[in-house]
Amino acid sequence: MKILLPDTVDLDPELPEGWEAVVVDAREEIPAEHHDAEVLVVWGASRRHLASAAEHLSGLRCIQSLSAGVDGILAAGFAPEVAIATGAGLHSLTVSEHALALLLSLVRRLPECREAQKRHEWSSELGGLQPLRPEGRLTTLLGARVLIWGFGQIGQTLAPTLQALGAEVRGAARSAGTRAGIEVIAEETVPSALPEVDVLINILPATEQTAGIVGREVLAALPDHALLVNVGRGATVDQTALREALEAGALGGAAIDVTDPEPLPREDPLWDAPGLLITPHAAGGRPVGADERITRNLRALVEGEELLHVAAR
Amino acid sequence: MKILLPDTVDLDPELPEGWEAVVVDAREEIPAEHHDAEVLVVWGASRRHLASAAEHLSGLRCIQSLSAGVDGILAAGFAPEVAIATGAGLHSLTVSEHALALLLSLVRRLPECREAQKRHEWSSELGGLQPLRPEGRLTTLLGARVLIWGFGQIGQTLAPTLQALGAEVRGAARSAGTRAGIEVIAEETVPSALPEVDVLINILPATEQTAGIVGREVLAALPDHALLVNVGRGATVDQTALREALEAGALGGAAIDVTDPEPLPREDPLWDAPGLLITPHAAGGRPVGADERITRNLRALVEGEELLHVAAR
Repeated sequence: MKILLPDTVDLDPELPEGWEAVVVDAREEIPAEHHDAEVLVVWGASRRHLASAAEHLSGLRCIQSLSAGVDGILAAGFAPEVAIATGAGLHSLTVSEHALALLLSLVRRLPECREAQKRHEWSSELGGLQPLRPEGRLTTLLGARVLIWGFGQIGQTLAPTLQALGAEVRGAARSAGTRAGIEVIAEETVPSALPEVDVLINILPATEQTAGIVGREVLAALPDHALLVNVGRGATVDQTALREALEAGALGGAAIDVTDPEPLPREDPLWDAPGLLITPHAAGGRPVGADERITRNLRALVEGEELLHVAAR
Repeated sequence: MKILLPDTVDLDPELPEGWEAVVVDAREEIPAEHHDAEVLVVWGASRRHLASAAEHLSGLRCIQSLSAGVDGILAAGFAPEVAIATGAGLHSLTVSEHALALLLSLVRRLPECREAQKRHEWSSELGGLQPLRPEGRLTTLLGARVLIWGFGQIGQTLAPTLQALGAEVRGAARSAGTRAGIEVIAEETVPSALPEVDVLINILPATEQTAGIVGREVLAALPDHALLVNVGRGATVDQTALREALEAGALGGAAIDVTDPEPLPREDPLWDAPGLLITPHAAGGRPVGADERITRNLRALVEGEELLHVAAR
């Protein structure tokens, strides 16, 4: 029995008795000698790779994606009996870390400090004695009211760290309640909650419902000192509205790891919006615990047990 | 009975029966009508202010500093029976937050991202698919080996947050042991520990023993990918050695909130060292919980109980 591993990441899962692992080029078609594979691991695969797998791997039983999103795999036309396991959770730690880096960089004004450094300027405006809560500016997460919109595994990983730094954290999701010890409000109540939010962290997926949802109304409802961090999907933010809010001083700052489209075109005016930090989809990109997930799901497959995180077909 | 509060920070402590609080200019001499004060709160005071207090407040029983360091107060010549209470702990949260901001900014290469942004460049080197542990570069705190040198209240506040982000954290202090659940190594064993350190966080106080202690030998003993963060005191780092290590690629990056002297002179070559982020002593500067500390110590004074954090005279 054969499992195909992508060449886009170093992998070394434990294989059950009688299985062999073969590394294949994730950008190219599957070579004919590997059309007998029963499991395919997907990471950074091209459309061509997926299409060739869907067409030729006639004995395929399971696809293990290392991404949380499996839209591309679902669109590739695999037979309905092929189980598609998502990589949900493999990026929670890295994306959560990046979100925190972006947020703290805004709160502690590190881009401004770096500019002052380049001018060889020890800025008394940026350091020294200062009020804890100056009017119109957030300078610490201590006591900051944070709303994490899209409260899945990443948000639940991030929330306790923000709490440890002294923030008051709530999540927003489809249904209200308490998740992982954090108060979660229902999405439809977000607009009324925004005036009391100092930091909005967007970890929303891209769906029809979320397209441009962080737009003029949401940005206007936030206090002028509020900070926005987006580590979800670029399409959830109305980028013109974001730029205009920053230009108007109606938002304290923003940091985004995702844009729409990606890459952001060179001529897009968003690049130069004041108080905006852009990182080039750098939050995740490196699955953590991939070997363990593959090992676990491969064993489950062999033993006829349930796979973790199977996508609905 | 009278307590003098500085005008450099908003304060509103609870006063015992019969006490009045008066706000005075912390840069100026104490006005004659307040020479009867029994308690003086110090924050951002000038030498002149302290000297005038030492000379004229003949009924002074206690000085409550809002800084952790009280060198300036000790040098001002107060009578030996005046108790000097330090502001130890009032800056742990803010300094710890700043240290984390600096460290994550280095780990997540935010200064490089900002430069790419200015060039309108979606850098595929900084984002997208990437190895979790590339050779010669630290890209996540997950699994990073962190040593906090100078393991007092700030370090003990910072350590659990770093652990929550997946780092392996140890402290270094005068004596080995376990403090706040964290393994602490003795200072004399630091040199032999350094080759296994990915991140060195310096929170050392400035003393004769620590002057320039992070110098050529320490920097050479760290791996070339290691990151240095200094939120302690500038005098503990040999700045020429730091610049040369960065120029030689013998250090992965550094972020410092303190220099020697401060402000760093405009012509100092340290400003332009590669991979270095400088913030202008911005970590603390805003005591957290000052009212509670003043209230608590004032009550203790009135009731003849022990003051918190009295400095040795």
